[in-house]
Amino acid sequence: MDAPSLINPPLAATLLISCPDRKGLVAAVTDFISRHNGNILQLDQHVDTQENVFFMRVEWDLENFQVKREDIATRFGEIAAPFEMTWQIHFSDQIPRMAIFVSKESHCLYDILYRQQSGEWKVEIPVIISNHPDMGELAAKFGIPYRVVPINKDTKAEAEQAQLALLDEFKPDLIVLARYMQIISENFVSHYPNSIINIHHSFLPAFAGAKPYHRAHGRGVKIIGASSHYVTAELDAGPIIEQDIMRVNHRDSVADLVRKGKDVEKLVLSRAIRYHLNHQVLVYNNKTVIFA
Amino acid sequence: MDAPSLINPPLAATLLISCPDRKGLVAAVTDFISRHNGNILQLDQHVDTQENVFFMRVEWDLENFQVKREDIATRFGEIAAPFEMTWQIHFSDQIPRMAIFVSKESHCLYDILYRQQSGEWKVEIPVIISNHPDMGELAAKFGIPYRVVPINKDTKAEAEQAQLALLDEFKPDLIVLARYMQIISENFVSHYPNSIINIHHSFLPAFAGAKPYHRAHGRGVKIIGASSHYVTAELDAGPIIEQDIMRVNHRDSVADLVRKGKDVEKLVLSRAIRYHLNHQVLVYNNKTVIFA
Amino acid sequence: MDAPSLINPPLAATLLISCPDRKGLVAAVTDFISRHNGNILQLDQHVDTQENVFFMRVEWDLENFQVKREDIATRFGEIAAPFEMTWQIHFSDQIPRMAIFVSKESHCLYDILYRQQSGEWKVEIPVIISNHPDMGELAAKFGIPYRVVPINKDTKAEAEQAQLALLDEFKPDLIVLARYMQIISENFVSHYPNSIINIHHSFLPAFAGAKPYHRAHGRGVKIIGASSHYVTAELDAGPIIEQDIMRVNHRDSVADLVRKGKDVEKLVLSRAIRYHLNHQVLVYNNKTVIFA
Amino acid sequence: MDAPSLINPPLAATLLISCPDRKGLVAAVTDFISRHNGNILQLDQHVDTQENVFFMRVEWDLENFQVKREDIATRFGEIAAPFEMTWQIHFSDQIPRMAIFVSKESHCLYDILYRQQSGEWKVEIPVIISNHPDMGELAAKFGIPYRVVPINKDTKAEAEQAQLALLDEFKPDLIVLARYMQIISENFVSHYPNSIINIHHSFLPAFAGAKPYHRAHGRGVKIIGASSHYVTAELDAGPIIEQDIMRVNHRDSVADLVRKGKDVEKLVLSRAIRYHLNHQVLVYNNKTVIFA
Repeated sequence: MDAPSLINPPLAATLLISCPDRKGLVAAVTDFISRHNGNILQLDQHVDTQENVFFMRVEWDLENFQVKREDIATRFGEIAAPFEMTWQIHFSDQIPRMAIFVSKESHCLYDILYRQQSGEWKVEIPVIISNHPDMGELAAKFGIPYRVVPINKDTKAEAEQAQLALLDEFKPDLIVLARYMQIISENFVSHYPNSIINIHHSFLPAFAGAKPYHRAHGRGVKIIGASSHYVTAELDAGPIIEQDIMRVNHRDSVADLVRKGKDVEKLVLSRAIRYHLNHQVLVYNNKTVIFA
Repeated sequence: MDAPSLINPPLAATLLISCPDRKGLVAAVTDFISRHNGNILQLDQHVDTQENVFFMRVEWDLENFQVKREDIATRFGEIAAPFEMTWQIHFSDQIPRMAIFVSKESHCLYDILYRQQSGEWKVEIPVIISNHPDMGELAAKFGIPYRVVPINKDTKAEAEQAQLALLDEFKPDLIVLARYMQIISENFVSHYPNSIINIHHSFLPAFAGAKPYHRAHGRGVKIIGASSHYVTAELDAGPIIEQDIMRVNHRDSVADLVRKGKDVEKLVLSRAIRYHLNHQVLVYNNKTVIFA
Repeated sequence: MDAPSLINPPLAATLLISCPDRKGLVAAVTDFISRHNGNILQLDQHVDTQENVFFMRVEWDLENFQVKREDIATRFGEIAAPFEMTWQIHFSDQIPRMAIFVSKESHCLYDILYRQQSGEWKVEIPVIISNHPDMGELAAKFGIPYRVVPINKDTKAEAEQAQLALLDEFKPDLIVLARYMQIISENFVSHYPNSIINIHHSFLPAFAGAKPYHRAHGRGVKIIGASSHYVTAELDAGPIIEQDIMRVNHRDSVADLVRKGKDVEKLVLSRAIRYHLNHQVLVYNNKTVIFA
Repeated sequence: MDAPSLINPPLAATLLISCPDRKGLVAAVTDFISRHNGNILQLDQHVDTQENVFFMRVEWDLENFQVKREDIATRFGEIAAPFEMTWQIHFSDQIPRMAIFVSKESHCLYDILYRQQSGEWKVEIPVIISNHPDMGELAAKFGIPYRVVPINKDTKAEAEQAQLALLDEFKPDLIVLARYMQIISENFVSHYPNSIINIHHSFLPAFAGAKPYHRAHGRGVKIIGASSHYVTAELDAGPIIEQDIMRVNHRDSVADLVRKGKDVEKLVLSRAIRYHLNHQVLVYNNKTVIFA
């Protein structure tokens, strides 16, 4: 067999940090870890010299770490305070919960369900929410609750209230819009800042908004793309997490672009989700730092 | 909706031709079509000047074609004979039948079933054959007959006989080895020349044979690949239909290569299958001409 | 040596055709060639089914062709007229003349001069025109006339007159803006329709106009690109000939994008020039058909 | 102007470290830097968990660093010893010296000279050595000493002695084989371990050795590649630094592969050189860690 995967990797902690850049930041964090007998598994840092902001991700083995898991946040908080760090801590045995929004297109949903079911991702999918019943059968095949919330111009506000109520019930850490095709209101977004991932079927910022493949075809581009980004109040303008492209030519009709584009959309969305699930993404200034 | 697909495209015929190169070949074929009021939809030709071989693919609309469908082969045969053409004709309403062989890996099978079920490909899948029961549940989800033929060193010959009997029963036009992981005997291959497509998880001819990801990792390559080819008597040495690659780096373990490689394998295999189903492939000299 | 290049290939003719689609087009053209004992070297055709336009490129060997070179246009014109074909004919021994416009950036100019000097392209470069003296030394190294026409907002009209006068003198078939960085007026463009190739340092239509790398950096894109297109009256909106991309990440400053982008710009521009020089480009509806 | 490049960046030091993995390594190094008031500009680390080896690259600003430049090595040596670190230190004002070996192909040489001359790389090129006089004119254009050492089967040992004598004279830190096309003896390599960079015109390990494009064409691959690696005693088997690829198809003759391949070779070699010049490469187990 070609695929030896690690069985029961040891418990690890991951810190994501950002703060104004100054001397001694890495030393302070790594000293905290090594002083308590932690073994660093992975460390990445970045300095935006233009904005003078420091970013760091560090993952360490908790096996012989001498601070108890439940005390780590408090103890690290003492290190973080004088540096004015913004930080989060994650433990490798916490399985994130991911809600999925879909409309009528199945390719991204199918791809996500496969990656979860095959064990490629450690994630729970508590619910799939849609404005149409079409994907219900697929959800049933995988045993995942499927809720339909119809939506139209007149009912948008109520529909979003119903969606938010569902999310309160299913408590996701992350929401993925898997070709959901509806614009999310600023109010909705404000409940899940940097926690809603969308896939847009163009190479942003080109062809933001509706019918990107039609417009790409009309413009005669030689390459199409897909972009995954966090949803913000402005349409298709949130922090980009991942992008990729595919070559096309004069023979490709709009239908060909749609077909070829699906393969890029799936890949780009799945990479973005993976980065998020692995706590490899830091957001600032409407951009992302990806520690991959 | 972004995906307008052609409903009921008109009936079309596709000719695939190869022969020694000489003057007048394109004129002879296109004259045959236009003289009988056919409208060419797509025409591709290629001359291997080194080998002096001519290749052609032409697809035309049969709507007002004045030769009856059942007579086309006979009539075209009269054109083809003096040029010593080797040729095949296909009609667009013939749905090819594709048998799938799998072992324990699900990613390629899953991808194929999705493309067929979603209507991306017009193909029937009459049977899935495996040496293990593992994929039976997935086959059942899609309502496709699943047959297990266990195989080991001692039973290989009998197992292949049982497989050939199954194929006689299900009569596929094409056999896809979707990570089947068993070596096919020369005898078996001889029953399906240029009709068995394999996906090998390396950038051929690098890492032909077993455990390519382990060997790629050991060699420290910066890019991994996958290759889809027709199966011939020599292992991983048949005509290559499609290849693609993915960038890796020192951080990637063998398990990471396996995971990342799956996305390339799926894409490469699906493109190769599509070329074959669309009659876009001509084989000669252990190479392929792909009219895409 | 790895690079056997064909010495004295036989004389060939290339026809580029477009017209309303109808039956018998390919047959008519190929019959003309084969009837006079011509041997087709390469044939490509395309039908835009939406617009009902037919495109064709055919290249044939003139060695034993029974129509004299100087009569081919007249004789083919008789075939073309009833089909309302728009067409051009080129002979392989005609070396095109290419004028280059530059500003202060050297990378594209350097790349072009290398390809010409090394024999990769069969093209004459009669003159390099610039608004700055900076590239004069490089031009001198290659023995190419270098003319400086300073330009500013107030002198733009006169400067363009001076440029047009130079072009009248040097009679180029093609003008390449190798990072010329000045907007060309509609009047200027009208003298050279579909004959001025520009390289824009973004993935069009994203970041048309000024400072694309700054804007790409500001938007936090994960991929940058370059686009080569024919110049039309509207800035960066002409028919795209070729595009390509390069992956970037959060570590890349604007200066890094500029540096990395240069390698893409060079490649994309050189491919577009090659397509044009080989008569592989047909323009319609502000798009291109590339028979490559 | 689009290309603001940093004028007079502050003096920085770069440490490259490898050693058996254990706790406290990052903390020890970063504490050394921050304790003496150094500001980390960039830090990368990697652990090969299979081999239990730790790798690190750290670059810091020396502006207010309280250890004098000439004492840094000694003082850091005290930190390094107990961890059994193998390490090197580089200062950003040291301009490396790079000798170039060429044969008759100009594309890589031309590309390298452009990058050096245009200021893209901070490197001195004290000498170009060749077994043929062909590139002398190009070297002269750039004012670089050009030495011809003819070589054939019978004179190989003496020729290499002459080359080594030249290198003793010109004292390069790095030797680049820019399509030199001669096999280097084990003795020669032993003088410059991990300091000779070659470009091989295939996707290694496929098509190691002679005439890779011919063999790629013969095998009918759909993608060609280039690989840059450190030269070791075994032909084309040294640690790979960088690889990239280009798509080809049945229309491409060997001459087309040669032509297209040149663009990949140039890019791959230039990226490998850049990594080396920036001290971003660590070699172990015949593989590379690239901190890019």
